[in-house]
Amino acid sequence: MERIDDLGCKGYRIIQNPKLFCFGMDAVLLSDFAKVKKEEKVLDLGTGTGILPILLEAKTEGSFFIGLEIQKESVDLARRSVELNKLSHKIQIDEGDLKQAEGKYKKSSFDVIVSNPPYIEPQGGLKNSDQAKSIARHEIACTLEDVIRVTSSLLKVKGRFYMVHRPHRLTDIMILLRKYQLEPKTIRFVYPMIDKDPNMMLIEAIRHGKPMLKVKPPLIVYTQEGKYTKEIYDIYGIEPST
Amino acid sequence: MERIDDLGCKGYRIIQNPKLFCFGMDAVLLSDFAKVKKEEKVLDLGTGTGILPILLEAKTEGSFFIGLEIQKESVDLARRSVELNKLSHKIQIDEGDLKQAEGKYKKSSFDVIVSNPPYIEPQGGLKNSDQAKSIARHEIACTLEDVIRVTSSLLKVKGRFYMVHRPHRLTDIMILLRKYQLEPKTIRFVYPMIDKDPNMMLIEAIRHGKPMLKVKPPLIVYTQEGKYTKEIYDIYGIEPST
Repeated sequence: MERIDDLGCKGYRIIQNPKLFCFGMDAVLLSDFAKVKKEEKVLDLGTGTGILPILLEAKTEGSFFIGLEIQKESVDLARRSVELNKLSHKIQIDEGDLKQAEGKYKKSSFDVIVSNPPYIEPQGGLKNSDQAKSIARHEIACTLEDVIRVTSSLLKVKGRFYMVHRPHRLTDIMILLRKYQLEPKTIRFVYPMIDKDPNMMLIEAIRHGKPMLKVKPPLIVYTQEGKYTKEIYDIYGIEPST
Repeated sequence: MERIDDLGCKGYRIIQNPKLFCFGMDAVLLSDFAKVKKEEKVLDLGTGTGILPILLEAKTEGSFFIGLEIQKESVDLARRSVELNKLSHKIQIDEGDLKQAEGKYKKSSFDVIVSNPPYIEPQGGLKNSDQAKSIARHEIACTLEDVIRVTSSLLKVKGRFYMVHRPHRLTDIMILLRKYQLEPKTIRFVYPMIDKDPNMMLIEAIRHGKPMLKVKPPLIVYTQEGKYTKEIYDIYGIEPST
């Protein structure tokens, strides 16, 4: 059931199991949106198969990356991907509940925290009968507020938080970020096409940052002809097919 | 110093004085974004030259429109524009401070409230030496919170609020709207060009609405060739020049 996919980046590969949860474009866009500087220490809350630590290690000069994941099967896949790419000295996968992460890591110790959390509210949407997929997609094991509260506690002052989420939760996100002293600094909306509603948004917040939000140009995924736009090809690091 | 401009809509015209403040694209986009249904009663907080009531009367089937304005010279211009267009039976221009509007109008009495408020925070930006322009552009006579608090008080339950503002204030706006039980329902970002940061946003909020925000497709003003896009021509109701 497992498969190994090439990440098109430094030759890294990832082990996934479609019966559990496979990463999507949201993780790839988030890895491109997040800024990690030289020697910075990064935490990924709810790392799943470890896609974000692996992509961020490939794309940035961060010194150490921790992925925290509650689901045992995903932890196992993520650890094997880290070994497969010979990254055990730079990436650590921890099994655990992010709601308890404040006891697990030192407070105010991370330069950057990233998260591609479950998008769907507990009462919302059809639950997948498969528990692993449900936990990845629905706020069952953790809520949006858990992610933001824990981030605020573990991030250094002036540290940066990067999250991908759905636009319909924007109001909740803004209110929770400010409640926990994470000031929204940059937002980018991802529109499937130029004339469609956005279905993703990328957010940067800074702990104890000054209020001043920058909304970035639209990130458009497909051209009117249904091909990826140049920017998406660039983010994936592949050449447009002609 | 005064001039009379054609609004390109039902033959209506508007009297403006460039020494005071002339309406811009923001007012036109807001008049297009705001939904006013048949027989609805509308209030414009800070109406300036009365551009919003006049455009909304032209574009919708609302029954009555009130524009409230603190600056005497603008009130005078707005009243004369209403008369010029023979709209005195449908549009009323009131002189007054919106901070006192809760004593002036009946609570929960409007179906729709619109506002194109001053964008710039009291301490922010260079003030114009001209007081009339400063009051229109800076939060001197009223703050964003005043506009939202008064709106919440005067709007019917399930009534709709439409505002145009700058994207960098998005967090403040979301927090204040929810503080006053005005739930953000629709946002549209206005990008000058497809690869530029948005410089305006249009927001719809519903008093006591359910949380569920819809972000609309990007509204792009200029093509890469520097001409207005088709959508902007459509909103202005004019034909593209060829």
